[in-house]
Amino acid sequence: MEQRYDIAIIGTGPAGISAAITAAARNKRVLLLGSTGSSDKVSKAHLIRNYPGLPEISGDALAEHFLEHLKKMDIQITDRKVAMIYAMGAYFSLQIDQDFVEASTVILASGVSFGKSLPGEDENLGRGVSYCATCDAALYRGKEAVVAGYAPKEESDARFLAEMAEKVVYLPVYKNADLEAMPDNLFPDRPNIEVRKSRPKSISKRDGRMVLETDEGEIETDGIFLLRESVSPDKLVPGLVLDGNHVKVDRAMATNLPGFFAAGDITGTPYQYIKAAGEGNVAALSAVSYLDRQK
Amino acid sequence: MEQRYDIAIIGTGPAGISAAITAAARNKRVLLLGSTGSSDKVSKAHLIRNYPGLPEISGDALAEHFLEHLKKMDIQITDRKVAMIYAMGAYFSLQIDQDFVEASTVILASGVSFGKSLPGEDENLGRGVSYCATCDAALYRGKEAVVAGYAPKEESDARFLAEMAEKVVYLPVYKNADLEAMPDNLFPDRPNIEVRKSRPKSISKRDGRMVLETDEGEIETDGIFLLRESVSPDKLVPGLVLDGNHVKVDRAMATNLPGFFAAGDITGTPYQYIKAAGEGNVAALSAVSYLDRQK
Repeated sequence: MEQRYDIAIIGTGPAGISAAITAAARNKRVLLLGSTGSSDKVSKAHLIRNYPGLPEISGDALAEHFLEHLKKMDIQITDRKVAMIYAMGAYFSLQIDQDFVEASTVILASGVSFGKSLPGEDENLGRGVSYCATCDAALYRGKEAVVAGYAPKEESDARFLAEMAEKVVYLPVYKNADLEAMPDNLFPDRPNIEVRKSRPKSISKRDGRMVLETDEGEIETDGIFLLRESVSPDKLVPGLVLDGNHVKVDRAMATNLPGFFAAGDITGTPYQYIKAAGEGNVAALSAVSYLDRQK
Repeated sequence: MEQRYDIAIIGTGPAGISAAITAAARNKRVLLLGSTGSSDKVSKAHLIRNYPGLPEISGDALAEHFLEHLKKMDIQITDRKVAMIYAMGAYFSLQIDQDFVEASTVILASGVSFGKSLPGEDENLGRGVSYCATCDAALYRGKEAVVAGYAPKEESDARFLAEMAEKVVYLPVYKNADLEAMPDNLFPDRPNIEVRKSRPKSISKRDGRMVLETDEGEIETDGIFLLRESVSPDKLVPGLVLDGNHVKVDRAMATNLPGFFAAGDITGTPYQYIKAAGEGNVAALSAVSYLDRQK
């Protein structure tokens, strides 16, 4: 890893993979950093219905398609973690463990990091625990689910879930919110959503059902949705401007740092595979234009 | 087509199809308008290397994948052309031939209109110049009209017009067509259609009549129909703000008109399948949010 790469891409979800494919098609020297199995979030999705051209595909199968595509284009994944990225002016220096790697441009596509996991969360992800109500709602037709919404905007996902599920328990886990002042029923038009003002503590399984332990006792259910959002890519890249928890980008996926682009969930909602893949493509072509202008 | 749709989607390229798939997955009542064979631009692409998950796919094969996906989700394409879209405040009214259809939101994904206006065209639009023969035919009962058809399928509109008009002059302005090889009379059953193999240059008015200047002299007439593949979006949607030749959108694919979204090539470069598909998804979810907020 001594040479300077044209484009360093961080993340192997749909955004990073799409960026790598387009960059390689444009004959750029690409360093693709991330998990070799594509991102966990892709492969753990149950059923993806809205990736055009690949109807009703499982997360695992989509991840396989992606990896197959990389293989056909002879693109390698480097499974190492970036600790820090420094903008050096004419290039970027990426700290990878104790090494430093140089790249003329960077595309950050590392997804949304969900902060600290609850005890029992990681083990049950994709097996009763989900991060995406709109993705997995169909699995809960006629069943029960608990939704921990970490921001008021997640109420609309609970609402969507309640169109399919028989019953939804909604926990408004809002930061700095006055729970006392909140109406007891946030969903007057949805009698099958029950609101409980308690905070999730841990997750376990019992007799094939999910159990969410809260600060006010346990809830037994069929599935648990944790709808969080929290990242700090500005800690990874000093000087990078954020918009809330996301990297601030324009329509060309450019950030405030010249030559530094971002794509996918890290740039904001909606968290969708096809949106991320589209943005990866745009970021790659913007990086190519940037490289052309430097000549 | 009497009810009000939740989302009207115009265009059946990757953006429109992606929008329809996501909107349908969110249980919205969708009207998808466009060519039933997906867009010509998709199926005419030779080899697409950077649609992640479908490596080295031909345009034809990708279009087939898209149509198969629509079929699996039971989404129909309505093969009719939108002449005009009016923002009515709480909803949109779409003029389709002589009918009007209502939709709460609209996603415009009709691709890039490559046609520049003719000199004199914009000033006379609606005053002797029309883009829709089936809409305005009744105005030409017993009169003369010139039809510039930019594709063979426009011949049927000329035919329809000739049922009312006394005389129609038809200009086959086909791309890459061998005009020499074309029969002199495209309409043997319609003696009141005269075919002239010349190209329109500019439009003016003289003594209350319209004058079309062509590369082979001028034609004086009562009305001029310019039947192009796509109409400039600000003419299709009065009040829509453009950015150059493209529809101006933000990162949520929202235009300046509340409830009106755009996606794909029409919103700007890069003209890429996966970018368009990603934007269609974002536009659909933005429309869903907009619908939720209206409740």
